[in-house]
Amino acid sequence: MGRTLTYPKRSSNTVNRYNNRATYDLGAIHSIINESQVLNVSFNPGPEDPFPTILPMIGQMGSFQYPSADINEPLECYLHGYVSSRIMNLARSNEGEGLPICIASSKVDGLVLSLTPNSHSYNYRSVVLHGYAKLVTDEDEKLWAMKLITNSVVADRWDNTRVPPDRAEMSSTVILRVNVVDGSGKIRSGPPGDERKDTERDDVTGRVWTGVVPVYETFGVPVASEGNQVSEVPGHIAEFITKRNEQNRALAERAARPAVGSD
Amino acid sequence: MGRTLTYPKRSSNTVNRYNNRATYDLGAIHSIINESQVLNVSFNPGPEDPFPTILPMIGQMGSFQYPSADINEPLECYLHGYVSSRIMNLARSNEGEGLPICIASSKVDGLVLSLTPNSHSYNYRSVVLHGYAKLVTDEDEKLWAMKLITNSVVADRWDNTRVPPDRAEMSSTVILRVNVVDGSGKIRSGPPGDERKDTERDDVTGRVWTGVVPVYETFGVPVASEGNQVSEVPGHIAEFITKRNEQNRALAERAARPAVGSD
Repeated sequence: MGRTLTYPKRSSNTVNRYNNRATYDLGAIHSIINESQVLNVSFNPGPEDPFPTILPMIGQMGSFQYPSADINEPLECYLHGYVSSRIMNLARSNEGEGLPICIASSKVDGLVLSLTPNSHSYNYRSVVLHGYAKLVTDEDEKLWAMKLITNSVVADRWDNTRVPPDRAEMSSTVILRVNVVDGSGKIRSGPPGDERKDTERDDVTGRVWTGVVPVYETFGVPVASEGNQVSEVPGHIAEFITKRNEQNRALAERAARPAVGSD
Repeated sequence: MGRTLTYPKRSSNTVNRYNNRATYDLGAIHSIINESQVLNVSFNPGPEDPFPTILPMIGQMGSFQYPSADINEPLECYLHGYVSSRIMNLARSNEGEGLPICIASSKVDGLVLSLTPNSHSYNYRSVVLHGYAKLVTDEDEKLWAMKLITNSVVADRWDNTRVPPDRAEMSSTVILRVNVVDGSGKIRSGPPGDERKDTERDDVTGRVWTGVVPVYETFGVPVASEGNQVSEVPGHIAEFITKRNEQNRALAERAARPAVGSD
């Protein structure tokens, strides 16, 4: 592994509250983005609209220029969308460095139940990226990003569908490439923390259960469509479901316990 | 039930793409907000910062003025946060109608796997609200909102903890009340849809599995903290876990199949 690259700390991405939970490591931040089924993307629709709106989008971190770059190295964020959507029109008309956007994602890993409402919390992993979005115009880069994003939904799905996309499919899909300028992550794991004013009160500790309820996403039994002609669920889907279910559950259960080596 | 109230359609909240999936019904939108473990809240940090940032927050719809209002009626959105966080400082300093914010949430209910990458989709429920946020200054309203939000994490949790919050706890917690000006929701359910150009090709349908993989959040086995003195997991937690697990799974599995009455 060697060195760990970190995002620069600016006022816009520096975590102030619970900053012991903060991370600026590229690898940690990029991993949370890549494991997100949905990314929340915010942008300002225009000067007449006071509300910075949020769009749910699908995306992945990657580098078309340096495809061998790993998760710990500088990467762009690729977002998938429809050709005439508002964010695409804004990115298209935004000359220069691109449309300023924010990308955020959070996953709850557990309910942290403590003695008082005030010290209740979640175990969670969350990230924020800031950057400038531009439309990908190079056809090779676009196709590469479409494959990257499709395979993030189910591993190896691209090669197990009818590809390549035809001309109409290529032109109705737009890919945004986001040049990331800063980012930060926040991770909480472990049991609840209560203050001595409560832990020393027998009438409180004798009555209030404390601990963590693990929370994890489960992929269920595949339901074939009416028109499906393939009798068995293919290996790339079955293996993806098994692997992700094991990973998701293990992560949430591990997060519910004290960190190894601490007490 | 009677009438169904809907949010007004403005340019900022009108769904253009796949508008057959759109809803403006207050009940549908409020329910998705209330079932969200995390809400994504975007705001503009200031004129010197081009990026509309996103903060993960916990919140619920409710009406302090008309506590008997049900989910289909006009409600405010209450958000929970820390006293000195940036959004709270901005809302505090924002005179007049309040800080313009956007609240968004999405839940994936299934992976919709079709013949081509282009027609792949998710089953999902997503919402966006726009509104003006102000700090709640009335102590009764603040306490009411804190209870509302705590009980959204685990039903009946408030009364099963050490309450009421003391003076320090009350002053470190801030509640934002969002006056909602518009909202919209988008819901997709059902099997994949493919175009005839692919469904008529035996070489494609003979090779590509199509259907839906249900996706749902699971609450696992509670892990007691080291200091916990209550031997059994209390009913309010055990029942919440059982009920939510059944609901979540049933919703995702139902969404994977064609709507009843359609074919």
